[in-house]
Amino acid sequence: MTESDSMTQELEHFMLNGMPLARAMQLSVGAYDGDHLSLHAPLAANINDKGCAFGGSLGSLMTLAGWGLVTLAMRERGLQAEVFVANTEARYLTPLTEDLHASAQLAVGADWQRFFDTFAARGKARIFIASAVHGADGNACVQQARFVAKRCTALD
Amino acid sequence: MTESDSMTQELEHFMLNGMPLARAMQLSVGAYDGDHLSLHAPLAANINDKGCAFGGSLGSLMTLAGWGLVTLAMRERGLQAEVFVANTEARYLTPLTEDLHASAQLAVGADWQRFFDTFAARGKARIFIASAVHGADGNACVQQARFVAKRCTALD
Repeated sequence: MTESDSMTQELEHFMLNGMPLARAMQLSVGAYDGDHLSLHAPLAANINDKGCAFGGSLGSLMTLAGWGLVTLAMRERGLQAEVFVANTEARYLTPLTEDLHASAQLAVGADWQRFFDTFAARGKARIFIASAVHGADGNACVQQARFVAKRCTALD
Repeated sequence: MTESDSMTQELEHFMLNGMPLARAMQLSVGAYDGDHLSLHAPLAANINDKGCAFGGSLGSLMTLAGWGLVTLAMRERGLQAEVFVANTEARYLTPLTEDLHASAQLAVGADWQRFFDTFAARGKARIFIASAVHGADGNACVQQARFVAKRCTALD
């Protein structure tokens, strides 16, 4: 098992154990290569009244993909931080009638080095992450979200 | 039971039966007065790794409150329509460590009459809805979302 496999397994375990809704979504963590993270969830657990993917599940999966990417990027560098979502902008483009496959990556203009430099200097930093859920004919929905990482302290 | 109670019970039944994730969130529908709709969900079913409300649950509840408000406004007028979310903008202001209480209402500048006039003329209309999840010290998060209502046809 590679280090990346071990990190994604640990992330999946962490999400499924810490978040009942991630369990209800039957979320699984896919590949992580340092720049991209993919998450998956079956349609059946995330369906709506119209027989397609529920908007709340799509939004949650995109947010979790972004959160997971920032979390893994911190852990890879041995940094202890609380990561939380500050704001999101999502567009729902087309109904999705298949299993949910999401991916997250840095948003245009965002920069890991600047993020980690700020975190090192101030113990807190913000970064924009772009995520999407992909259908057979392109993206079913896209999201840009700002995440905040805050250094864990003994008093937290 | 008033007509409004009957409508909110029907909406709750519809959400819990049609959307597994709404069931997992243990969602319940609160009051509806024609202009506002409130939804509730217990913290335990919607908690995250940090012991506060999961961002995906907060976003889902705000989206469902908006979706529910537009759906009830259509049903109240005897209109058959598919209602779906087109885009959302959410801000997460403060961690929530209590049960989730969301409400939705028209966004500033939005107008039911214009929405229903457009729907009558074109069979399709868009409306902006503002929603929030409330904590003890104000809003934990706020969202503005655009919903689309599309007339149901026999061919759908």
